[in-house]
Amino acid sequence: MIFHQFFEVESSTYTYLLASEQTREAVLIDPVASEIDIYTQYLEMHNLTLVYSLDTHVHADHVTAANLLRDKFGCKTVLHRNSGVNCGDIFITDQSVIRIGEINIEARYTPGHTNACTSYVAEGMVFTGDALLIDGCGRTDFQEGNAEILYDSIHTQIFTLPDETIVYPGHDYKGRLVSTVGHERLHNSRLGAGKSKAEFVEIMNNLNLPYPKKIDIALPANKACGQ
Amino acid sequence: MIFHQFFEVESSTYTYLLASEQTREAVLIDPVASEIDIYTQYLEMHNLTLVYSLDTHVHADHVTAANLLRDKFGCKTVLHRNSGVNCGDIFITDQSVIRIGEINIEARYTPGHTNACTSYVAEGMVFTGDALLIDGCGRTDFQEGNAEILYDSIHTQIFTLPDETIVYPGHDYKGRLVSTVGHERLHNSRLGAGKSKAEFVEIMNNLNLPYPKKIDIALPANKACGQ
Repeated sequence: MIFHQFFEVESSTYTYLLASEQTREAVLIDPVASEIDIYTQYLEMHNLTLVYSLDTHVHADHVTAANLLRDKFGCKTVLHRNSGVNCGDIFITDQSVIRIGEINIEARYTPGHTNACTSYVAEGMVFTGDALLIDGCGRTDFQEGNAEILYDSIHTQIFTLPDETIVYPGHDYKGRLVSTVGHERLHNSRLGAGKSKAEFVEIMNNLNLPYPKKIDIALPANKACGQ
Repeated sequence: MIFHQFFEVESSTYTYLLASEQTREAVLIDPVASEIDIYTQYLEMHNLTLVYSLDTHVHADHVTAANLLRDKFGCKTVLHRNSGVNCGDIFITDQSVIRIGEINIEARYTPGHTNACTSYVAEGMVFTGDALLIDGCGRTDFQEGNAEILYDSIHTQIFTLPDETIVYPGHDYKGRLVSTVGHERLHNSRLGAGKSKAEFVEIMNNLNLPYPKKIDIALPANKACGQ
């Protein structure tokens, strides 16, 4: 398997490329519109064909590259059915699988940050979007956010994966690249060490976060799959 | 929308083509390997690009054209996740949606004939595969068949559609092309007029059908997506 982690500095967004060595087919998870030249260069350099662009949810902090990539490479745009957008090609639901060459990418529905959040599991890795972050999680105070639902999603869909599963989040704001399911289950300061749902909800209800600065631009753009 | 119903005479299989007038993208539902020249001619004649090949289940009576179509047109092979094959590209689950142009094709999981049966709903039509047939239904005595489960699938996933929804089955052996949900709910001799689950199971357990003549060839072939 070919794997690459990209970082977009303005919104601290991680984008992931997975590709089959056999078929040279590639997918991008959570691509950012401004970075399309970087993805193009990487694909060309490694002789890869972009087949799918997957978004873990409708982002509020950056604009997806879905449309740009579809226009450029003819790839299919994949989103959860609950995303409320009608510009996608394939609307997956829990347990749907997208396959490229020898790689199966399984969708796990993990709502709570938004109503359409999906994590993707492949090759011992889980791409958690904004559901589970490293030592944190996505906020739950907008876009149908719900702390109780997020707690259940993380416990039933992510923490049930093997301890050694590598966690690749949708963002990190402190330079951390990667974690594991076992580490987050033990040490995540909002969810780790057996914190109860009530404790988690209490934490989430008292974050006092500012209004997301790009939401009024990013949400309408992403509901149209980007630029 | 562009729509066409094909009939393969040896196995009495119906294949359906749906295409977008806007984008000229097309899908084929339950294509048969022997008919690939007919599909190719139709696609070329109407200037259509085949984007997806959908199978309602792993067939026991004919060989799917999935691989042939993928090789010829580069389309994606779509199956339910429970199909137990690993040659597909997209493994959908209940409520997944495949979109071509203005057309949304929604998957409804309808097990009972097999464990992977999926019906597809689009534009006021339902493509029922071998779950619901005209005045009948798929047999339930092989391939994880289960009459109780089939009864529930048809009642919860098909009979809940509006009465006027057009039913396009996977087969007919008496020359019938089409029915409606309302007609089948009232008049299907195994399921209509409010027949109970116990009555249905009794009927299904006493069909005394012969061993399917092509199953030993078709099942292994279809688990590999055809020839």
